[in-house]
Amino acid sequence: MRLRRKADTIDVLQGKERIVLNAEQWKGRWMELFVRNAPVHAELGMGKGRFITELARLHPDINFIGIDRYDELIRRAYEKALVAGAGEMPGNLVLVRANVEHIDQMFAESELSHIYLNHSDPWPKKRHENRRLTHPRFMNKYMHILEPGGEIHLKTDAASLFEYSLNVFADMNLRMRNISLNVHAEGTPPGHVFTEYEQKFVAEGLPIYRVEVLTNKEAGS
Amino acid sequence: MRLRRKADTIDVLQGKERIVLNAEQWKGRWMELFVRNAPVHAELGMGKGRFITELARLHPDINFIGIDRYDELIRRAYEKALVAGAGEMPGNLVLVRANVEHIDQMFAESELSHIYLNHSDPWPKKRHENRRLTHPRFMNKYMHILEPGGEIHLKTDAASLFEYSLNVFADMNLRMRNISLNVHAEGTPPGHVFTEYEQKFVAEGLPIYRVEVLTNKEAGS
Repeated sequence: MRLRRKADTIDVLQGKERIVLNAEQWKGRWMELFVRNAPVHAELGMGKGRFITELARLHPDINFIGIDRYDELIRRAYEKALVAGAGEMPGNLVLVRANVEHIDQMFAESELSHIYLNHSDPWPKKRHENRRLTHPRFMNKYMHILEPGGEIHLKTDAASLFEYSLNVFADMNLRMRNISLNVHAEGTPPGHVFTEYEQKFVAEGLPIYRVEVLTNKEAGS
Repeated sequence: MRLRRKADTIDVLQGKERIVLNAEQWKGRWMELFVRNAPVHAELGMGKGRFITELARLHPDINFIGIDRYDELIRRAYEKALVAGAGEMPGNLVLVRANVEHIDQMFAESELSHIYLNHSDPWPKKRHENRRLTHPRFMNKYMHILEPGGEIHLKTDAASLFEYSLNVFADMNLRMRNISLNVHAEGTPPGHVFTEYEQKFVAEGLPIYRVEVLTNKEAGS
């Protein structure tokens, strides 16, 4: 996602509490950034941040990390986070400007408990397949940084990415759960947290696909 | 599927070679009905028989069984089979009038190598869930009568049945393969065999869902 750049964005972000511009320096010690020790859930490609800031507001007992690669998106998410935190960055939310390509250099083994992938770029052309965030090369990174019993929650409006991802998960012999071809088919589930994209697509009557994937890591591995 | 009954249907079917009206009497010895020893593939709910007769024509090295519960459907399939067999029932095709409910009384353990479920009734109401042919109570029967390494191939136009079935397979920890949200999205695959329903739905531009499921039986179990 691209937004028009504002001249002062980097100044707004720099030096702010729980805004991270040098993600790799926090590898293995993200917990130091949060107010409390708690399981860490990360959204890869948070966009404007509605989903992750809303989760942070609803679940004070979980630590959240929202990641995107563009300064402007971090700023938009930061503005939402300040609203959620009544003028301050919530103590359970960190916003990170980073490229998901390097996710395995940002997190240590088993440092995360959940990964959210929402409306990831479907990269529909076959020659771009390895850019899809559910490509096995990414999945293997996620498996490493997720703890045993960790989960990946995928939500997308793109049938092509969903189909591709189900096959990757099946081929990797990963357990799936709560597979949905249209999350909102019988009305929006209670407590459901929307992304910006999702709100738009649901308003247009388009289906939202969703699946949860469990790591097959054994405890202690 | 219901068709108008013709008065002479039962007479047409009775005593014909490879037309079976007393399925349970063949349990454990279906191979005797075929011209050759070969793996046995069964379609549960074959309707008018286009799919299974076409498969039988294309794959003389495999034995096929088409099952449905109505005399009239067996007759329709029989008429198609005669065309495929140039006036005779093909030596690798058996048509069976039987209720899938009793599938485990019709086949012995490991007697089948593939099961096809095409456009099974989706039974969309929750209270009819246990009538769906992918309900765990049916899946457990299939697992018993399929050989180790056996496969179930599901094809449907019903998103609700597909979603339900994926979750059943995932919850039963069955391996899935070749998951498709629209078989014909990029044109019909080469060698694809249509069912009657499928032809109609594809002509209307509706998606056909498909998945292959592998038994988790070990050889020798």
